[in-house]
Amino acid sequence: MTPPHPFDNAIHLDTIDGNVRRGRTHPEWANFVGPFGGITAAVMLRAIETHPDRIGEPLALTVNFAAPTADGDFDISLRAARTNRTNQHWLAELSQDGAVTTIATAVFGVRRDTWASTEAHPPAAPPPEQLVPGVPGDFIAWGHLYDARFVAGAFPGEHAQPNEVSTSTMWMRDNAQRPVDYPALAALCDIFCPRVFLRRGGFVPSGTISLTTYFHADQRQLDALGGDFVLGTAHANRFSGGYFDQSAQLWSRNRALLATSHQFVYFKGQRSQG
Amino acid sequence: MTPPHPFDNAIHLDTIDGNVRRGRTHPEWANFVGPFGGITAAVMLRAIETHPDRIGEPLALTVNFAAPTADGDFDISLRAARTNRTNQHWLAELSQDGAVTTIATAVFGVRRDTWASTEAHPPAAPPPEQLVPGVPGDFIAWGHLYDARFVAGAFPGEHAQPNEVSTSTMWMRDNAQRPVDYPALAALCDIFCPRVFLRRGGFVPSGTISLTTYFHADQRQLDALGGDFVLGTAHANRFSGGYFDQSAQLWSRNRALLATSHQFVYFKGQRSQG
Repeated sequence: MTPPHPFDNAIHLDTIDGNVRRGRTHPEWANFVGPFGGITAAVMLRAIETHPDRIGEPLALTVNFAAPTADGDFDISLRAARTNRTNQHWLAELSQDGAVTTIATAVFGVRRDTWASTEAHPPAAPPPEQLVPGVPGDFIAWGHLYDARFVAGAFPGEHAQPNEVSTSTMWMRDNAQRPVDYPALAALCDIFCPRVFLRRGGFVPSGTISLTTYFHADQRQLDALGGDFVLGTAHANRFSGGYFDQSAQLWSRNRALLATSHQFVYFKGQRSQG
Repeated sequence: MTPPHPFDNAIHLDTIDGNVRRGRTHPEWANFVGPFGGITAAVMLRAIETHPDRIGEPLALTVNFAAPTADGDFDISLRAARTNRTNQHWLAELSQDGAVTTIATAVFGVRRDTWASTEAHPPAAPPPEQLVPGVPGDFIAWGHLYDARFVAGAFPGEHAQPNEVSTSTMWMRDNAQRPVDYPALAALCDIFCPRVFLRRGGFVPSGTISLTTYFHADQRQLDALGGDFVLGTAHANRFSGGYFDQSAQLWSRNRALLATSHQFVYFKGQRSQG
């Protein structure tokens, strides 16, 4: 029997009661402190997907990282705050020993066949087959679960210098080519290392405090994508006061904009370093 | 005695108990259906600001519009889901007659003196004094509370044609030049008409379902801004399945990036129109 994919392990949830799911952290998904934020976003979304009252597909997801999740079990409590005819507003809270570590809101809804247009353009990139396989970031356990092929803005190595821009562009897929579903797409949106690493030329203590993803892909587009590479690009707009923002886009090989994602990130660093 | 500014009226809240505030809708702020989303975002943020346990300044705000707020009173319930040493995670729910119409999460926190850099560039624009005063949009009550001076992508008028891009850029300030505080900044982030109006060349039924704003400006920068014009620019990335995203930036005259803001919007429209 094939062992389950690490991603499926990570988003596996047991039903405790109608509105509570129980999951657990997995060492493969460890980040510097607590689990990879993307896997936490994925499990929050997955928890809502398991609810029998859920209607439609994910449209928007916001995950606020209030505290690191400790190693071990966690509970996710779910509440449909409002159900409309074609969409539904969810609240989800992840807690451990009664203390909330993660808060999420999500909008699910029905997609309809409407006028459509993609106004954004994917970043210029050679096909992934022409690039060197690598990892999205060094020193982190979960990085080794992905194949990341940088076009620009690679993770800064040992002798890296500060960059003038924070943009990273890379092809990425998970190593086992597990088909991309909404939780996997939510995780991919958070795969980029903190933009401050690029600008400062190395590791800077930092952590996402709020992550918002808009899902543009419908289920048919995800089915067409399967486990293929996704082209991701991310940049920051402003660093100040110990925080910066990041905006990212994820594209399929055939130029479908799958998701746009934004986050606000805490970072540490004295002015004197600048 | 000078009557209070309509914005101060709109965000005025009475304390019902420690965690509940009561406000009311105001006809000046009416939109097509329910109040202007920006004023709802502002009052949610204001409610958190009034809480005696609040620490620091607003960093990130997400407002999910679950249903239109009906004319009349509303209650906002507040909960500090997690308080850390330098930041705090809030949940706020606006309800009428026990039914939730709006859900917000917010992160407040302390800003520190760190390395800083603004990577984005403001859009090219002549000074506001060289442009014609106008309103952000026709047919809406609240539009007349603002002075909006378009640089690009004006609100489509009666004989407008579809545009190839959805970008709007404009200088804006409220008519009474009330100093911009965080609630006012939150409202300004939602001032842009739905991007689908630009692309389709006219009115299309639409409404924001989720709005996220990152506050880059600290209090000192807001004090320096006062009631001066703010340069806003907004664009969409993809329209599909009856939804589109919008990303916006708000700049001060002296090129400070005050806020970045993103939203996901429902729109109506048959494929046959395209």
